[in-house]
Amino acid sequence: MAEGDFFPIRTLVVAGLGLIGGSFAVAARSAGIAQRLVGFDHSARHRQEAEALGLVDATLADWKDLPEETDLLLLAVPVGALAEVIADLRPHLPAHTILTDAGSVKAPLVALMQQPAYQAIRFVAGHPIAGGERFGPQAARSGLFQGKRFILTPTADTDPDALQLVRAIWTRFGSEVREMDAQMHDEIFAAVSHLPHLLAYASIQAIVTSDHSEALEHSGAGLKDFSRIASSSPEMWADIFVENKESLLKRVTVFRETLDALEAAIANEDDAALRALLWQAKQDRDRWMG
Amino acid sequence: MAEGDFFPIRTLVVAGLGLIGGSFAVAARSAGIAQRLVGFDHSARHRQEAEALGLVDATLADWKDLPEETDLLLLAVPVGALAEVIADLRPHLPAHTILTDAGSVKAPLVALMQQPAYQAIRFVAGHPIAGGERFGPQAARSGLFQGKRFILTPTADTDPDALQLVRAIWTRFGSEVREMDAQMHDEIFAAVSHLPHLLAYASIQAIVTSDHSEALEHSGAGLKDFSRIASSSPEMWADIFVENKESLLKRVTVFRETLDALEAAIANEDDAALRALLWQAKQDRDRWMG
Repeated sequence: MAEGDFFPIRTLVVAGLGLIGGSFAVAARSAGIAQRLVGFDHSARHRQEAEALGLVDATLADWKDLPEETDLLLLAVPVGALAEVIADLRPHLPAHTILTDAGSVKAPLVALMQQPAYQAIRFVAGHPIAGGERFGPQAARSGLFQGKRFILTPTADTDPDALQLVRAIWTRFGSEVREMDAQMHDEIFAAVSHLPHLLAYASIQAIVTSDHSEALEHSGAGLKDFSRIASSSPEMWADIFVENKESLLKRVTVFRETLDALEAAIANEDDAALRALLWQAKQDRDRWMG
Repeated sequence: MAEGDFFPIRTLVVAGLGLIGGSFAVAARSAGIAQRLVGFDHSARHRQEAEALGLVDATLADWKDLPEETDLLLLAVPVGALAEVIADLRPHLPAHTILTDAGSVKAPLVALMQQPAYQAIRFVAGHPIAGGERFGPQAARSGLFQGKRFILTPTADTDPDALQLVRAIWTRFGSEVREMDAQMHDEIFAAVSHLPHLLAYASIQAIVTSDHSEALEHSGAGLKDFSRIASSSPEMWADIFVENKESLLKRVTVFRETLDALEAAIANEDDAALRALLWQAKQDRDRWMG
């Protein structure tokens, strides 16, 4: 399918007007890929903000108002809300509409969409590797996906034209598009993203409950960088942790083994073991960060 | 004591020509606080590099060569080496020499220096809150301490003139000088610095041993910042962890309690508990980072 056969999309609907959905709408407008941009959000405040910011031309709060000419619908809602949103949306979804998403966990969604009730939907699963600590419509920015990776996790059943369209859009937004198996995606991101976020969140209590009220004014750049991801959206990350719990908890188990070994080496003042563990970590970290 | 009564120092000796010692030497030369700068290091390579880089005017490898006109001696060796270095140095240390240090753990050193054999030494314990992942003489830079905090942990026995001199030097280097109790120092830095470093080191194995070789190419800015401190010097951090093990392991215990609670909430898909834990972490982190 050449781009000319498809573009422009008549109506593009973005469900979830947060950082990702809002940035997708702004990027879509900049790229001129849709005649009309419509936003869906359960939050009246998000709808008002998105309209006031000009992210979309109009908003919806009920799927029965979904326009028949909706050619593409992006779900940018928290991953824990996807199943319910899709169930609500299903009766109102035109047969030709391509449905895609931007969730950080892929296997449960891909499995859901292979169920009989959803098999006919032209669905393409995707995950933009982009984000930040700021969230909500106000955080939306056109360049968010520029130079970032976008992962597609198609199956044998994925409509090839729909897949091609979604790939073309993210490529147009400046993303580097990759394809991989959904389960593999979830295992990889459990390691490189979900575990570090969980550990950053888990560390804060031990830092702030140190016995001295003036402790925090002595925090430096190292702590600031280490803990930055603990300022991310709790709702979004609660959903990701639960949706990807199997892969994530496996990583937590490996982390605990290393922490146990480090703690034992410190308690026993086993300098050789401790240095070996720290050198291994440093070398692995330096190798992968280049 | 006015600055004019003391400056310039005749000979300033820096023991340990790494990032901190080397940067101290460069800053001392820039500020013109000493007539002569001498470096001590057990490593022949460090001595050669420090001389080639012009960090010092000359180097020593044996304390018997310590000049009688040494007015100030900074110990910038790993904290685990301090006791041995001081024992080696003691028989050769002139009575008038002011001895100071730059170690990240203070209570064990302060206790050591209160032992009868060392009570006569004009010792001032200090800790510059500065560093980085690069280390060794090559990493030395004049501005390292500019705008950073410097902590003094004097006792009732600390020589007031020696304390005033050390304070004046770090102030001249652009540091903001604070005083606090050594034990309190160690508890605070266990929380805001030593624990985050330990967790960053502990996390790397769980990330790199994920089952997919291509995982690491999907790491993003969040992981890069989170793990940056795991590239710090393993020798330096092994020493810090062991020297401050009591306060550090207390922080690890609190961390484990939070991680256990998060893990249980994820395993049980207890969304309310999980969100509450993540919100608490985010709010605490945002409050202290401003």
